[in-house]
Amino acid sequence: MTASEIVDEFIACWNRMDVPAAMDMMAEDAVWDNVPLGPAEGKAAMMALMANFPPSQGTEFIVHHSAANGNVVLNERTDRFLVGGRWREIRVMGTFEINAEGKIQHWRDYFDAAQMTAAFA
Amino acid sequence: MTASEIVDEFIACWNRMDVPAAMDMMAEDAVWDNVPLGPAEGKAAMMALMANFPPSQGTEFIVHHSAANGNVVLNERTDRFLVGGRWREIRVMGTFEINAEGKIQHWRDYFDAAQMTAAFA
Repeated sequence: MTASEIVDEFIACWNRMDVPAAMDMMAEDAVWDNVPLGPAEGKAAMMALMANFPPSQGTEFIVHHSAANGNVVLNERTDRFLVGGRWREIRVMGTFEINAEGKIQHWRDYFDAAQMTAAFA
Repeated sequence: MTASEIVDEFIACWNRMDVPAAMDMMAEDAVWDNVPLGPAEGKAAMMALMANFPPSQGTEFIVHHSAANGNVVLNERTDRFLVGGRWREIRVMGTFEINAEGKIQHWRDYFDAAQMTAAFA
């Protein structure tokens, strides 16, 4: 799979809410940096971070634009979460770095924390 | 020039603080969307927005990653501004859409508004 295909598949895992499959696509020592919130390093920290999010009955990551340069993929998205019977939206851009084993080593998401807080209110 | 070259040159304009040259690279009806703040549409609105920013004695947009897909360029940056004798930094991702005339039609920057406010405090 190309770097772009790996990221497309990773997004697809989230969209079918298959967290184990998404985790499988990340390196054991991956760093997931939600830039305004700070990084989670390694799978245990990533799982702990997710456990802190409000429970979602649906997830839809809409990719508006995506481009790859070698092992790095950048995309522009609207991330939607069905929480408490209402879809919440966040405008996001993300950077994904794929390692030599085809796993996601770095995932950095850029968004406005205040927009996220308002969306989930 | 390719879409990537156009964006590289646009970044270079900012880094030499040549605002007229940067404006020249944008379409007359371009939309500059600082996502947490909202969009400025057209050159007059963009100039008015810039006039509201604190005066900068230096500008350095450091591009960490950049990738193009057709006429769309995405990049991950640290934008630095020398304001009041101190460099202020914002972590940013941006999307640039180039029109058929080779001008920037859309520029969307994603960052955390609170981080910007803290940086410029």
